Amino acid sequence: MASVAYGPESIVLVLAAAGSAGLGMTLPVTIAIVVLLTVLIASYRQVIAAFPNGGGAYAVARSHLGHRTSLVAAASLIVDYILNVAVSIAAGVAALTSAIPALLPYTVWICLAVLVGITALNLAGIRESARAFMAPTVVFVAGILVVIAAGLLRSEPASVTSAASTLGASRTIGILLLLKAFSSGCSALTGVEAIANAVPSFERPRVRGAQRAEVALGVLLGVMLLGLATLIGKFSIHPVDGTTVLSQLTAAALGHGIAYYVVQFATVVLLALAANTSYGGLPTLTKILADDNCLPHRFAVATPRQVYRYGVLALGISAAVLLIAANGDMNALVPLFAIGVFVGFTIAQVGMVRHWRGDHVRGWRWRLALNGFGAVLTCVAAIVTTAMKFTSGAWLIVLVLPLLVLIMERIRKEYNRIDGRRGTGCLPAPPRATGTVIVVPVSEVSELSREALSAALSLGHDIVALHVCLPGENTTAFTKAWEAWHPDVHLEIIDAGDCTVGAPVARYVRDNFPDRRKVVLIAEVDPSTGWDRVLPSHRSDELERQLRRLPDTVVCHLRVQTS
Amino acid sequence: MASVAYGPESIVLVLAAAGSAGLGMTLPVTIAIVVLLTVLIASYRQVIAAFPNGGGAYAVARSHLGHRTSLVAAASLIVDYILNVAVSIAAGVAALTSAIPALLPYTVWICLAVLVGITALNLAGIRESARAFMAPTVVFVAGILVVIAAGLLRSEPASVTSAASTLGASRTIGILLLLKAFSSGCSALTGVEAIANAVPSFERPRVRGAQRAEVALGVLLGVMLLGLATLIGKFSIHPVDGTTVLSQLTAAALGHGIAYYVVQFATVVLLALAANTSYGGLPTLTKILADDNCLPHRFAVATPRQVYRYGVLALGISAAVLLIAANGDMNALVPLFAIGVFVGFTIAQVGMVRHWRGDHVRGWRWRLALNGFGAVLTCVAAIVTTAMKFTSGAWLIVLVLPLLVLIMERIRKEYNRIDGRRGTGCLPAPPRATGTVIVVPVSEVSELSREALSAALSLGHDIVALHVCLPGENTTAFTKAWEAWHPDVHLEIIDAGDCTVGAPVARYVRDNFPDRRKVVLIAEVDPSTGWDRVLPSHRSDELERQLRRLPDTVVCHLRVQTS
Repeated sequence: MASVAYGPESIVLVLAAAGSAGLGMTLPVTIAIVVLLTVLIASYRQVIAAFPNGGGAYAVARSHLGHRTSLVAAASLIVDYILNVAVSIAAGVAALTSAIPALLPYTVWICLAVLVGITALNLAGIRESARAFMAPTVVFVAGILVVIAAGLLRSEPASVTSAASTLGASRTIGILLLLKAFSSGCSALTGVEAIANAVPSFERPRVRGAQRAEVALGVLLGVMLLGLATLIGKFSIHPVDGTTVLSQLTAAALGHGIAYYVVQFATVVLLALAANTSYGGLPTLTKILADDNCLPHRFAVATPRQVYRYGVLALGISAAVLLIAANGDMNALVPLFAIGVFVGFTIAQVGMVRHWRGDHVRGWRWRLALNGFGAVLTCVAAIVTTAMKFTSGAWLIVLVLPLLVLIMERIRKEYNRIDGRRGTGCLPAPPRATGTVIVVPVSEVSELSREALSAALSLGHDIVALHVCLPGENTTAFTKAWEAWHPDVHLEIIDAGDCTVGAPVARYVRDNFPDRRKVVLIAEVDPSTGWDRVLPSHRSDELERQLRRLPDTVVCHLRVQTS
Repeated sequence: MASVAYGPESIVLVLAAAGSAGLGMTLPVTIAIVVLLTVLIASYRQVIAAFPNGGGAYAVARSHLGHRTSLVAAASLIVDYILNVAVSIAAGVAALTSAIPALLPYTVWICLAVLVGITALNLAGIRESARAFMAPTVVFVAGILVVIAAGLLRSEPASVTSAASTLGASRTIGILLLLKAFSSGCSALTGVEAIANAVPSFERPRVRGAQRAEVALGVLLGVMLLGLATLIGKFSIHPVDGTTVLSQLTAAALGHGIAYYVVQFATVVLLALAANTSYGGLPTLTKILADDNCLPHRFAVATPRQVYRYGVLALGISAAVLLIAANGDMNALVPLFAIGVFVGFTIAQVGMVRHWRGDHVRGWRWRLALNGFGAVLTCVAAIVTTAMKFTSGAWLIVLVLPLLVLIMERIRKEYNRIDGRRGTGCLPAPPRATGTVIVVPVSEVSELSREALSAALSLGHDIVALHVCLPGENTTAFTKAWEAWHPDVHLEIIDAGDCTVGAPVARYVRDNFPDRRKVVLIAEVDPSTGWDRVLPSHRSDELERQLRRLPDTVVCHLRVQTS
């Protein structure tokens, strides 16, 4: 729904290049978009019915189109969730700076502040209830409808934004320009999929409810887009730097009074909430992908408040990068949008065609035709959108989508290897004890060495204390102290060669006990809380790194606290 | 020496604010700076003699002024090493873009590319020999001297840079403006300390050699600064956007021919080498600080090629942040510079005053007076510089210096606590074996669990296999598989409560075996090389995190490779 705030704007921006004649084409282009919207709504009603558990394109592709296609769908969803955050925040801040132009120089900082705020709320597990959504949505929809009604009744604009307009010279309107405007405007359709992804969150009867919501969304969206396009033509709105088209329309229809500010602020709040929806969607999607072994399992780890911290953080960081790169300008981000949506739409509908061919319910031919028609339309739209916006940023999406798919496939492969090595499923042989040698690296005679050797003695009898002689070190002091201590443990002194400790210890352990189980016990003092990331013991980390890949070797850490 | 490239420029930039009359004051301001230079050179000859092992201000302060003052000196050195890299690279790129204006829009990218290149070379341990330094230095010095000579002989400039000049309206020249110009020009003196820091790298007789180098540097620097200032007055050079003052002077004296390009490119190379000197200095300083427990010990870890990787990386990243923040503009960075240098100068000379009072060598009164005078001068210069440049960036230094000192003090304190806990020095009691229980968390019946239990059986007899029942999990499948396997190990099943595994295991281990040594054996499959950072086992990391702070607990990792 929030896409009404940037969809019409992006059409106007493209058409303005062809002067007033071009702007006259706003309504026809919008009509084409609304036709596409109708087809999409009709075919998504069927997706909802067939996949009542949600998941949208990813779920459809996973059941009907095989593994790789489902990853393409997942990648396009990921990209669009991230873009939704960036575009919604940029559009919300644009609405804010339109109302309060003094804030314009701080656009990027406001964008980042909003992003950090939303991310922090989501990390803390604070989620808006459906009610929180209702009020601003109602205000926004009512506001837009009032703007449309008032604008249609009014013969002269109530207020004209007087500023340097960026209207291009009058030119002939080519088919390319119209296609470009159409593809830009398609960003207004990005909300259609959200409902199909989130069926489980509807109240029972879920399918009915979700279908109704989808139709209601479609009707409202269509009415608003058509109404706004009519007003744009009527008031001959031009793109003006620093003021959004919606803000100009509101001012033209309602004047620059209190009503204007109410609509603007409802837009800001609604767009912030629209950005927030991604924080519900993306972490859930990455959780599913992690469960399917396509992303690191960390994405599936929930905090006690059911927050998937990695997903939320990944979303926040990616959106921040986009906002900084685009300098907080929503019109630089909108061209990236919609491609992923159409890729997802196409995959979902092709999957539905397969679905109907396998499942001959009543009227399946008719349903198949509808989804097939939808697939053709959205596929064409995807191609047109990509081609038209390739130079203005879409190349990034063309690059990122396959890269994401590739990464997810590689991760899946690696996890499969790990699972294979775990050897689940078959009954293993019984465990058996084997001969064990315990190696304890000691760097000095100290309380810490005593604790390390005590622990080693508690674990076995065959113990070697290993001292690495660093370059420039004189061992006599150490051996003297050792003899004075006389801990009754065999001592080996080896030479470091270069400056490090890890490699010589690993070499010694590997070469001297070929057929036995090796246990290396590393003792270290743990810094107090908060310092452990700043002052980790590099000796012990280095030993760990060198020893972890040795076969038949168990690395033990005895950590002593400072307090 | 390279500071000649940006010192005069920053004087001109300040004085231009007062119009042509202001620019006429370039020579007097430069004379004041050269006087300061003379005093500094004379007192640093004494520093070199007293501290033949190098270390400059930090070494002086550590022997004579106590621990905290030496940290202030160290922090000011760190700040200046970083700023030297940023300023030198920015100035070098400014020289490049002056010669080839087409490159001007890519300033930041060129700066970052040069920085990455220098950092990479240093990370790889490739160091320029002193010879590599010689050629461009000779070309640069000779070039500047030729420029000065030719400029003095010539009555009319050979070529005038015609561009929008940023000359301010003619105003009266206040004392504030002169002080500001003086403090900006002081950035030309930053090279004086470098020699005192690097005495050990001179050939024998070191002290003589370093002292001679210091005097030679002072004389050359003084001659060049005075000569350039005279030329600036003679050709009435104004600051011009996109062209450095040095480039204008060269063009004015030598024309825009091949000689101009030779001088410009010698400047570029010399500045890159000047940036590179920090890569020798800072990692060595951070190594000394790490050995003194004031920085994480990682800064003291050398690669086999004797590269202190953390120091080099910290330097590169800090300089990159500065260059990006300043947008590659050297005149934005120069105001930050010189403050740290003067703080270091002052500390060094106050320390020398103490030194002479304790060590009554021949002529100590006279030496003390010289260093005392130098200390007063540099202290005044430090205060003036900070006050004059406070709003144009110096506040950052005023903030960062105490912060660095604070951090280093906290780190030292924490390391002292750790060393105290190690208990070196006294003879510890002999190590003794104690009763041990081995806990093996098992999540499933698999090959991996067999290997874990085999390792546990090799280490002791009292073994508990611990299965954590996650929410929503049905334990019957697990217990059935366990009974079928029948590994002859005691099995405990505990409830997770929330979603994680770590906390319940830690609770079980802590509560059930109060007086015994606990060993927890974690088995995991290690991903193949390269993947271990992307796909770490979050279960095992979580166990590690929860268990590492338990008393009397040894955490063992049995890692199985996928290949």
